[in-house]
Amino acid sequence: MAKVSIIGAGSMAWSMALVKDLCLTKGLKGSTVSFMDVDRKRLDVVHGLAKRFATEVKGKLRFEKTTERKKALKDADFVFNTALAGGHPSYETQRNVAEKNGYYRGIDSVDHNMVSDYPTIGGYNQLKLSLDIARDMEDICPDAWLIHTANPLFEICTLSTRETKLKVIGLCHGHFGYEKVTKTLRLDLKKVEAESIGFNHCIWMTSFKYDGENAYPLIDEWIRTKAHKFWKNWNPKYYDADMSPAAIDMYKRFGLFPIGDTARSGGWKYHIDLETKKRWYGPLGGFDSEIGWSQYQTDLRRQYDRMFKIYNDPSVSVTEEFPAEKSGEQHVPIVDTIVNDKEGTFQVNVPNRGAIDGIPDDVVVEVPAIVSRSGVQRLRVGKLPKRLMLHVIIPRMLRMEWALEAYLEGNRDLLIEWLLNDPRTKSFKQAEQTVKEILTLPFNKEMAEHYR
Amino acid sequence: MAKVSIIGAGSMAWSMALVKDLCLTKGLKGSTVSFMDVDRKRLDVVHGLAKRFATEVKGKLRFEKTTERKKALKDADFVFNTALAGGHPSYETQRNVAEKNGYYRGIDSVDHNMVSDYPTIGGYNQLKLSLDIARDMEDICPDAWLIHTANPLFEICTLSTRETKLKVIGLCHGHFGYEKVTKTLRLDLKKVEAESIGFNHCIWMTSFKYDGENAYPLIDEWIRTKAHKFWKNWNPKYYDADMSPAAIDMYKRFGLFPIGDTARSGGWKYHIDLETKKRWYGPLGGFDSEIGWSQYQTDLRRQYDRMFKIYNDPSVSVTEEFPAEKSGEQHVPIVDTIVNDKEGTFQVNVPNRGAIDGIPDDVVVEVPAIVSRSGVQRLRVGKLPKRLMLHVIIPRMLRMEWALEAYLEGNRDLLIEWLLNDPRTKSFKQAEQTVKEILTLPFNKEMAEHYR
Repeated sequence: MAKVSIIGAGSMAWSMALVKDLCLTKGLKGSTVSFMDVDRKRLDVVHGLAKRFATEVKGKLRFEKTTERKKALKDADFVFNTALAGGHPSYETQRNVAEKNGYYRGIDSVDHNMVSDYPTIGGYNQLKLSLDIARDMEDICPDAWLIHTANPLFEICTLSTRETKLKVIGLCHGHFGYEKVTKTLRLDLKKVEAESIGFNHCIWMTSFKYDGENAYPLIDEWIRTKAHKFWKNWNPKYYDADMSPAAIDMYKRFGLFPIGDTARSGGWKYHIDLETKKRWYGPLGGFDSEIGWSQYQTDLRRQYDRMFKIYNDPSVSVTEEFPAEKSGEQHVPIVDTIVNDKEGTFQVNVPNRGAIDGIPDDVVVEVPAIVSRSGVQRLRVGKLPKRLMLHVIIPRMLRMEWALEAYLEGNRDLLIEWLLNDPRTKSFKQAEQTVKEILTLPFNKEMAEHYR
Repeated sequence: MAKVSIIGAGSMAWSMALVKDLCLTKGLKGSTVSFMDVDRKRLDVVHGLAKRFATEVKGKLRFEKTTERKKALKDADFVFNTALAGGHPSYETQRNVAEKNGYYRGIDSVDHNMVSDYPTIGGYNQLKLSLDIARDMEDICPDAWLIHTANPLFEICTLSTRETKLKVIGLCHGHFGYEKVTKTLRLDLKKVEAESIGFNHCIWMTSFKYDGENAYPLIDEWIRTKAHKFWKNWNPKYYDADMSPAAIDMYKRFGLFPIGDTARSGGWKYHIDLETKKRWYGPLGGFDSEIGWSQYQTDLRRQYDRMFKIYNDPSVSVTEEFPAEKSGEQHVPIVDTIVNDKEGTFQVNVPNRGAIDGIPDDVVVEVPAIVSRSGVQRLRVGKLPKRLMLHVIIPRMLRMEWALEAYLEGNRDLLIEWLLNDPRTKSFKQAEQTVKEILTLPFNKEMAEHYR
């Protein structure tokens, strides 16, 4: 049976979702899950909880745990990369340094990429780690599939498909965002078909059908007749941006509806300061404001605390905390499809190779594709509107390229060059000083040596 | 013989250069020059001086003058567009409005396009005029060549090649800038070969040979051993940017030497304020600072005054003011080549169609090409360095596309969208207000109706 290795298994809730899916997928009975993380405590917790969950649901899985990546990769058929090198705290420190230098919400919160843990120019440790994993795989398990979920997914996937010959897929659940649109419009989800394409965290609903008919007019009607009421006294959770004024405005500006995390970005119009964020995302200012982001961090910590508590109390039923139902993530269904020689359509991040017009072949796009043992077959999705290409897709692509170029060359000047394109940069010195201070942070020692 | 029509003939010095070249080109004896301008006074002056010049040098040309474009176009074989709709004053007023709203040097002075009379987003009147000329030509002289020299040349050429079926070429003399590099390096111009490609005002020296050998090391040596001395107490004319610290820095940043007007741009690093401009372009802050630009305007006015004076004094020899030697401009040699069925290599602005990799076919590039009666045959020039593509060429191309998209759609929101990409924009309101104020200017009445 298959061996699935989870790099960064300390993302505990996420690891547990995979374990659930593996336990509940008949065709994967007897598979091995190897948890790998540098944080031994979290590793113990996730390993312990996974074992208890499997026992409770009578799932037939074998579990391993290790802090050594190479051990985890041995004999792996699938490698899930969900690691955040250095964890959130180091990125928060980096953000603080940037804010002190005039970069509100950090140097990586830019134009069409405002998601706060999606570091590109400042994501050295993430890019490096993703490539280290891939390089190790080339040595140890060159036939295994590398399935990235770690951010910056767009950059990481493009980097590892360009630099290695591995089978690479990037997965995100953002495209399910059309379900929230559907819910707000009070439509029956079963009758809805949607397609959203673009780059990860920058996908746009190219097709939205209800009962086989174009359902965009239903969105238009909602905007015309219901949006105003919906937003009156609106007090959304930080993660509820799907039907925010920002999302609707983005639809008006660019011609297609933004799906999932896409609505969290959309340019400086919504993000220039907290007050502006509040206007577009509600009283918390959305996921990526200082308020929303801090709530998310608190939620994460609470979740971890809760899991430690359950781990330490063997009397608690793990299935009560993690109900025995599938997570909806695509990871395990893809493993099932490949292991059991089936075919399935999934939303994946893979090199474009003609799927979307006007995007180079070696740039990773997020599109529907047929996955099978023989590989990933992109569905031809054609053109995105020119408006979107000119104002979103190409500018976003450039930022990916600038980040990878700087990383691959290890060129400090290119980090500064990148910042010169940032509207928050008021002087060359400001950009130079910010890069210098970020590279002086203790956890960025290797980064500083890399960017000479 | 050929009929050459000059639209915007009131650009007097420029018109006189063409007249000189026509008089001094044997193969074009007997040709007709039709001067067209809406400014009757300037038209009289240029017509009068041209006639006197031709008489003095015994040039056999016929001259016409008219304020009606359609008359000028009748039977034309070549149409030179050098018009600046509304003249400089309206653009200065527009710039002032923008500056009042926080856009130093105006909304059209951006990133890789800092040249002060190269209006793109605010260039409605120029874009409109260029297309009106082309449309009239389709009716009146569809087989004539349309040769643009008017700015924004990049945008105008792309627009008229996309929107009409005319034979269109854009010409600029910026590529001769390598001569200034050569002179500074104290090389023998006769032994130098250079090729510079890209977009108009954004061309980069892809080849620089001295006696058949790569001469870039000579530039590097100059930078290492002589630049410092050269810049000490440097006090250049406003138009001397070729070997400025900015030009050298651009070479270091992007990997190829910027040629001609290219060195006047190069991004906000050199242009954020007057003090910064002075650091990079000398005490005047270069051509496009408030100081340099005002000196240029003064020089233009002096030149006009001088020409009016000569016009009013028939005793003055015109050849003394305009020596009977060729101007070096490519316009008349191209006319000669086509009329007399020859072949010649020129630096032209034409749709890319595969000349430079990674640029769409319908985007106008500035490249060497073979021109003959049967058309323009691009020389395959291949790749520009990735650095340049990512940081200069694609960003500059996007700005062209944003301007044409806004113009063709007549969409006011797209003008604002454009400004949202400008680092000087601090809020949506600022962008909105600036566009509103510019559209309220009396001479922009038609523009305001166009952009609904």
